[in-house]
Amino acid sequence: MTAADTAHDSIRAVLWQGDHLRLLDQRLLPMQEQYLDCRSADEVAAAIRDLAVRGAPAIGIAAAWGVVLAAQAGRAEVLAACARLRAARPTAVNLMWALDRMQVVLGAGGDLTALTREAQAIQDEDLAANRRMGERGAALIAPGSGVLTHCNTGSLATAGFGTALGVIRAGVAAGRIARVFAGETRPWLQGARLTMWELLRDGIDATLIADSAAAHLMKSGQVQWVIVGADRIAANGDTANKIGTCQLAISARHHGVRFMVVAPTSTVDFATAGGEDIEIELRAGDELLGYAGTRTVVAGAKAWNPVFDVTPATLIDAIVTERGVVECPDAARMAALLGRY
Amino acid sequence: MTAADTAHDSIRAVLWQGDHLRLLDQRLLPMQEQYLDCRSADEVAAAIRDLAVRGAPAIGIAAAWGVVLAAQAGRAEVLAACARLRAARPTAVNLMWALDRMQVVLGAGGDLTALTREAQAIQDEDLAANRRMGERGAALIAPGSGVLTHCNTGSLATAGFGTALGVIRAGVAAGRIARVFAGETRPWLQGARLTMWELLRDGIDATLIADSAAAHLMKSGQVQWVIVGADRIAANGDTANKIGTCQLAISARHHGVRFMVVAPTSTVDFATAGGEDIEIELRAGDELLGYAGTRTVVAGAKAWNPVFDVTPATLIDAIVTERGVVECPDAARMAALLGRY
Repeated sequence: MTAADTAHDSIRAVLWQGDHLRLLDQRLLPMQEQYLDCRSADEVAAAIRDLAVRGAPAIGIAAAWGVVLAAQAGRAEVLAACARLRAARPTAVNLMWALDRMQVVLGAGGDLTALTREAQAIQDEDLAANRRMGERGAALIAPGSGVLTHCNTGSLATAGFGTALGVIRAGVAAGRIARVFAGETRPWLQGARLTMWELLRDGIDATLIADSAAAHLMKSGQVQWVIVGADRIAANGDTANKIGTCQLAISARHHGVRFMVVAPTSTVDFATAGGEDIEIELRAGDELLGYAGTRTVVAGAKAWNPVFDVTPATLIDAIVTERGVVECPDAARMAALLGRY
Repeated sequence: MTAADTAHDSIRAVLWQGDHLRLLDQRLLPMQEQYLDCRSADEVAAAIRDLAVRGAPAIGIAAAWGVVLAAQAGRAEVLAACARLRAARPTAVNLMWALDRMQVVLGAGGDLTALTREAQAIQDEDLAANRRMGERGAALIAPGSGVLTHCNTGSLATAGFGTALGVIRAGVAAGRIARVFAGETRPWLQGARLTMWELLRDGIDATLIADSAAAHLMKSGQVQWVIVGADRIAANGDTANKIGTCQLAISARHHGVRFMVVAPTSTVDFATAGGEDIEIELRAGDELLGYAGTRTVVAGAKAWNPVFDVTPATLIDAIVTERGVVECPDAARMAALLGRY
């Protein structure tokens, strides 16, 4: 049994029920564990758009099952449904990648059984990739280290185990990680609401910080690595991830703290040369004008709410994928790892 | 009439009423404008500790009036009251500075009239200093610039007009500042709740961002200066300010954005050589576990809640005081400006 296998993880956020898709509604966590049953591709697209399901890999998996739901409703529906699913959120490339895979099966004349098999494969491969990344990432961390993570990259964001949180699960199980800190991740508080819930369920001791306390934490010497996921990685290693990630990378470099991105190769977009070509989703300013349902800002106030940013590859020490680790990433090293040379 | 004089500012957060102190309760803003009447030094100390009044200069002014309240209650009370006021919050040095001034008057045998005159002088001098700093700071800013501020450094945090927000008021009035952004400032949301309220009352167009969106904002080219206040400035220019300030300074340097600290000389503590000697207040983790009575984090979660951090002088382009501007601050330049040579 490997170290990663010993880490608990009983949470499954995306569950195929044979004829419909059940999603753990992440908007209500941690106070309520409620499930949302989606019976059409449009219901899946709405769940993605409204953040009931979030996290780049989980969005891709949910969209694949959305295609299966469309196929159940009749073959004529499917391509239009793919287009609507593709438009649900713009930044995470796993959504496009999963839909591409489903459309290849569809293009080859695949029937409902073939589409179901492909969606299940996308889900199973993601879980297996996460366990491999957990091992690889944890191996980079010196015993006794402290780590800081951002947003939620755990079972809720994937088929299970998680990307960055998978490395943390594996690193804690292997005795390499001694301290775990999570940033609360405004405006949706994925760190406060979701990551803290996942870690406490697994019995992993973790400490929440304000996003703005990260530099002070680094200066205090309590963390040696920042470990985050990714929504899209460009061909040169530039990484789009939850807003605030770039700031963490800049502060980490300033303080001599190392910076790790953990993502399956489905997150790498070779069609995007660099970070400047990645579309950054801008959501409604309203998300910043209140907190947990309580209005906090004076009426008439404006807000600017980009929900991702781009961390330049030059600030990243390692990109961990299921196929291997790219240290000091650049276009040549990314291509070499992923067999493009 | 100077540019600063044309900027509106009708807000007064600390109001002496002849026999008691009236404080605008900043915990309830912007949804409720309620006043808190303090009739003893201990009520003032509690208001400081519980953040009904906050902002380094405002805390100092409120404490000075607290000494007057103690003197009203009888001369034997006063020194003990000074000690309790001094212990109310540890980081802002203006609190210690104002109490030192009151104790000098007391030590010279000053009566209630003399103490009242000194408290009023502390308050009046702060307002005058803010207007001078507004002019000096605004003069550093090229016309058409965008600025980002953090926390609240306006009328609510001072005797009026503000420190960093005073520079912004003056810079907008002079046509130098074209865009104002405010970080929401977790966990107490002083930026979201207080700064946005102050700016909108003055008719100054402002945009709220998540604290973690600052680096992305800088990269977008929309801001040329970060302008913040200070709770304590060490002899070498290292500056303690609201948690998140250091992270802004690191990101600003990375992006070629300039960084300005605005504070009266009462904030400079020559007894503290450098930032490493400044006591950083650690408040209860509960402040991060929810908001306005709504719990957002799973039961049993821990949080680390330092409410200030230290920005090294090497990351500061200018410290603006009422006596002049220190560019590229270090111990020699700070001493030279403030007449220590």
